[in-house]
Amino acid sequence: MLDSLFNPKSVAIIGASTKDLSIGNRVIKNLVDFDFKGPVYPINPKADEVRGIKAYKSIMDCPDGIDVVHMVIPAKFVPQAVDDCGKKGVKNIIINSGGFSEIGPEGEAIEKDFLERAKKYGIRMFGPNCQGIINSDPDIRAYCNFTFTKPEPGAISIVALSGGVAEVIHQGFAQMGVGTRIYASNGNACDITIPEIIRYLGDDEGTRVIVTYVEGLRDPETFMQVAKEVAAKKPVLAMKAGRTKEGAKAAASHTGGLAKEDIATDLIFKKAGILMFHDEGELIQAAAAFASQSIPKGGRIGIITNTGGPAVIATDIFVGAGCTLPPLSDKTKTFLKEKLYPEASINNPVDVLATANAGHYRACLDAMMDDDSFDCVFVNFVTPFFVDTDSIAKEIVEVNAQGKKPIVCNLMTDPNEWTETVRILREGNVPFFPLPSEAARAMTGLVRYSRVVSRDIGEPKQFTDVDKTKALGIIENAKSAGKEFLSAEDVYDVLAAYQIPVAAWKITASADEAAKAAEEIGFPVVVKADAESVVHKSDMGGVAINLEDADAVKSAAETMGRKIDAADLKFLVQKFMPGGLEIILGAKAEEGLGHMIMFGLGGIYVEIMKDVVFNLTPVTPFEAEEMLSSIKGKELLDGVRGQKGVDKASIMDSIKRLSQLVSDIPMIQEMDLNPVMAFEDKIVIVDARIGL
Amino acid sequence: MLDSLFNPKSVAIIGASTKDLSIGNRVIKNLVDFDFKGPVYPINPKADEVRGIKAYKSIMDCPDGIDVVHMVIPAKFVPQAVDDCGKKGVKNIIINSGGFSEIGPEGEAIEKDFLERAKKYGIRMFGPNCQGIINSDPDIRAYCNFTFTKPEPGAISIVALSGGVAEVIHQGFAQMGVGTRIYASNGNACDITIPEIIRYLGDDEGTRVIVTYVEGLRDPETFMQVAKEVAAKKPVLAMKAGRTKEGAKAAASHTGGLAKEDIATDLIFKKAGILMFHDEGELIQAAAAFASQSIPKGGRIGIITNTGGPAVIATDIFVGAGCTLPPLSDKTKTFLKEKLYPEASINNPVDVLATANAGHYRACLDAMMDDDSFDCVFVNFVTPFFVDTDSIAKEIVEVNAQGKKPIVCNLMTDPNEWTETVRILREGNVPFFPLPSEAARAMTGLVRYSRVVSRDIGEPKQFTDVDKTKALGIIENAKSAGKEFLSAEDVYDVLAAYQIPVAAWKITASADEAAKAAEEIGFPVVVKADAESVVHKSDMGGVAINLEDADAVKSAAETMGRKIDAADLKFLVQKFMPGGLEIILGAKAEEGLGHMIMFGLGGIYVEIMKDVVFNLTPVTPFEAEEMLSSIKGKELLDGVRGQKGVDKASIMDSIKRLSQLVSDIPMIQEMDLNPVMAFEDKIVIVDARIGL
Repeated sequence: MLDSLFNPKSVAIIGASTKDLSIGNRVIKNLVDFDFKGPVYPINPKADEVRGIKAYKSIMDCPDGIDVVHMVIPAKFVPQAVDDCGKKGVKNIIINSGGFSEIGPEGEAIEKDFLERAKKYGIRMFGPNCQGIINSDPDIRAYCNFTFTKPEPGAISIVALSGGVAEVIHQGFAQMGVGTRIYASNGNACDITIPEIIRYLGDDEGTRVIVTYVEGLRDPETFMQVAKEVAAKKPVLAMKAGRTKEGAKAAASHTGGLAKEDIATDLIFKKAGILMFHDEGELIQAAAAFASQSIPKGGRIGIITNTGGPAVIATDIFVGAGCTLPPLSDKTKTFLKEKLYPEASINNPVDVLATANAGHYRACLDAMMDDDSFDCVFVNFVTPFFVDTDSIAKEIVEVNAQGKKPIVCNLMTDPNEWTETVRILREGNVPFFPLPSEAARAMTGLVRYSRVVSRDIGEPKQFTDVDKTKALGIIENAKSAGKEFLSAEDVYDVLAAYQIPVAAWKITASADEAAKAAEEIGFPVVVKADAESVVHKSDMGGVAINLEDADAVKSAAETMGRKIDAADLKFLVQKFMPGGLEIILGAKAEEGLGHMIMFGLGGIYVEIMKDVVFNLTPVTPFEAEEMLSSIKGKELLDGVRGQKGVDKASIMDSIKRLSQLVSDIPMIQEMDLNPVMAFEDKIVIVDARIGL
Repeated sequence: MLDSLFNPKSVAIIGASTKDLSIGNRVIKNLVDFDFKGPVYPINPKADEVRGIKAYKSIMDCPDGIDVVHMVIPAKFVPQAVDDCGKKGVKNIIINSGGFSEIGPEGEAIEKDFLERAKKYGIRMFGPNCQGIINSDPDIRAYCNFTFTKPEPGAISIVALSGGVAEVIHQGFAQMGVGTRIYASNGNACDITIPEIIRYLGDDEGTRVIVTYVEGLRDPETFMQVAKEVAAKKPVLAMKAGRTKEGAKAAASHTGGLAKEDIATDLIFKKAGILMFHDEGELIQAAAAFASQSIPKGGRIGIITNTGGPAVIATDIFVGAGCTLPPLSDKTKTFLKEKLYPEASINNPVDVLATANAGHYRACLDAMMDDDSFDCVFVNFVTPFFVDTDSIAKEIVEVNAQGKKPIVCNLMTDPNEWTETVRILREGNVPFFPLPSEAARAMTGLVRYSRVVSRDIGEPKQFTDVDKTKALGIIENAKSAGKEFLSAEDVYDVLAAYQIPVAAWKITASADEAAKAAEEIGFPVVVKADAESVVHKSDMGGVAINLEDADAVKSAAETMGRKIDAADLKFLVQKFMPGGLEIILGAKAEEGLGHMIMFGLGGIYVEIMKDVVFNLTPVTPFEAEEMLSSIKGKELLDGVRGQKGVDKASIMDSIKRLSQLVSDIPMIQEMDLNPVMAFEDKIVIVDARIGL
């Protein structure tokens, strides 16, 4: 439990400094300025006091029962200091200093050293090379941190390795006047990890929404597990940076990052029910909405505006995000016709006009809250000097307090002049934003999350008609034989063991055998040269398609035999299956995460359009269905231009079987089923590859 | 000339009011508070003074030489007041009041009435139903406007019909402390139009960048002409809202909008060289960068950071926008290894470390300014308490003042604490933004504009080998015959007149003739039933493809004859051209703009992927080439998977000919050339339609 870290009763600073511009001084200043509720013990062998607070020569001289010690001393002194803290019974140490694993092997050794000592004493380590923590709980007010953004108490907690971005996010809230709860940036994170902190925040009653920023996940498995647990309790909003190759490189070059260009993080977020952002501004704005608003039932939005253009901008954003702007119910229309100016526009958006007063706004708010057509209410509110904007703000606050449906407000004003209007909305917990697009996007965050919450991916199906023993045997044999890829025969046997449908096939050793096999399979057939010693078989003329009779097969195999001079040459004869819709299926191992399953359209066009989707194993039936409906060309699966659709059930079946196969046999590194021919009543894999 | 409107020597207010919360009072307050350099004449029949300023009973009593009169009186009194102004020699009238064309026919009549009177006297009318203008020129300081955002003098001018969004944009600049120059929001715009104002701003020396917001264009032709002229002189940044159907509907329902869902506005912006935005926040931020920074030569960006994560975020945005982060030159590396901390990361981004001082920043800035690898320099700058951030800011300002390359800064700070650092950057004209993504996007705005500036679309090619007379004759005949669509014969004749290649064809009256024609054309052929009286010919079995001999043709035609019972039935016999890449070409008339030309991939996949691009006529050779390289599947044109590419020159040729055809004969409403089969050495239109 991290209780004593985030709710310390006392804090000592080893490396407390009398110099203003040092971290060992700043941490003390922050604790004092923020009115920390417990005692602060500066440790300094030479000074009697630091910032007017009695200093101790050593941690050993301090009163007992210290929950948190800051260490702001050179790395080489840390292990000994940890020992001292252990003897003293300290519970947590925040190492603000750098000079550890982030600088290379030498620092890494010191980190390992102090960590072993800490474990011996049961001390939890935060950092090193980190900012620290903040808890703005009015009973605690622990500012164990040298950063500059002092929070107002609030309901948003922030956690990130990257101090830079955590601080930017924190500053974003501060500038909006939105309070925060716990802040934790743990730098090298040698002991206490991000998932552990997220789990703590999940249990923290004062935290209503968790915001995190990642560049890469060190322990994806644990992250996934914790994220699932916590996201089931409260919204977790996350941003992943290092999305481009260059961004990932930049991330890798600084401390916080272990990133590679990946899409697995996105998939983890999705699977865990984390709401994902690609922009820190949007993340900040959405979190501000989550901090005070409930999750809407859906994306049907009612807009109230006293100015035209900003409502148009908001409308574009809502519609672009898949929300709808339903018409007002007849009852609402009738009611508003009575209540609003005759020139007001009684549509959605409702334009109450710039001259609208508090009564007009209230009528609209009440009507939309009671109108079942809407899940949430969006307010564009410019503050003309000729109306009593304070009263309008009060009405918005009153309706917001009823908590019927979420409200987000686009307040367009000069905050230095309309201070009272701003204050009323802020204290009334109405999230408001100066730009219409920002406000609208904050609201779409709530709506997106309503979809996350209602999305129950269910459990994966466990197929019992599979022969795991057989498939495992094939793969273990190949592995012990040192093979990187399975032979064609092995590939098809593995697929068959999992009932993944393969076009009828046979491996043959001669042209005559090939012709015979073709007759058994039925024409037309394809013949493929199969020789492990030869890599680019198709470039060497090793594939012949659409062979209509035995002679053609024999002749094709003989030609291949002449072109490809390999002792281990065999001929794969397979049913030729033209005319279907080409799709592709695949799997790829992701360290610590199982596998990524891929589905997409195949063929020449889509190779260029890259119309593929991914999911992490285990892929549940819900997710398999979602994959099919997530590709851009999904209409093709249903049939277009009078063509028949394809057998979607079989595609989903194979996705789930593929998921089970790679989960059962994790040593499979990658699988490519490409192409898979999809027909009206079946799908058939016509080429496949399995890499170990 | 709008000189006397934007630089008034004196301002009178008809409808000056002694009531604080009235527009007739507020305009006077704004003029006085903003320190307007000329006299203000309140007109009020009952009061001796308004806000302490001598009031006049009537405009006739005022001193002469009035440049601007505000009218804040009921609509019905306006025509008479305009007459009075005319007699008085007033040059411009700003009508703030509403009650004109925006409320319906009655108001429209009044608007027409006062406009006629104004014209008689040569008075220019601004509005009605508008906010007014502001000119922050220190010699003028004309705040002829009742809005609340008072500008600091600056270089950005704002123009929009929509007062709401203009004010939001203005407020955005004010909150950033970025000055503005001229502000103009003209409501109903009955006389002085947006293009006229933009042209004025183009000539205004104090305006460095023009920002506009539109929901739809009333007079696209004039807008295009003016925009081209002005964009050649200075950056014009524009946002279009009402992009979604619902947004367009919202726009149409309020005063400013005449919008329909369109893409023509985007094409106008592009053709005119206007930099387009889809988000008012991005527009505001980019404009702030344009206000002080030069246009970079390209998109090669050097990043200097003192914190990791924010540089990762910026990198993602740069790369996503097509910018590059080149490596440092060896010279720069060597130089920085000497100058920076040993632990600093000498890459791009350069991480100077949080402890970096002014000298480190300066070394980096100097090096990047002199390193030819970079076109612009981006600075992530967090303000730790332990470094002298003022000195760092001063170095940034000094280097910025040298004007070698544009600089944008991501300043991460508490602006209430680091007031001096903020002040130094602001007064030093360094654009800075709190969020890394905002700062990065502002910089990508500069880079995008560098592409706009360097993009010379050239002149359209005039083909002389076309037979306009013939094509025009065909179309005029069809038109006078009341046809909505040309017959197949006419369509192909028109295309042939413009040397747009059509698969060899012949119209025949009987099955026998069809067979004969097929022999002349050469097999295989397609036969299509051609009867103007029948609409869905293909659904009725009116198409037979891939006919290999005369018998097949005859038989197909006979079958059609039996199925389609039409007196005017003919048979179009056409060369069958399988195996090419299907593409589509099209044209559509856009009122006031000529035509929109479309090009895209055809076929079943891309019908779903909607991979098409548009351009406005006349399409120049440069633009035609750009169209080909703008589709997502452009690789298909060059050939993939060993396939040969198609004849791109012929596609471009047909695009240009199509452009010339619809420009020559504007009564063509729409053309569909679909499909066009593209081969290695030619393209051939195999089906086409022309609508009038």
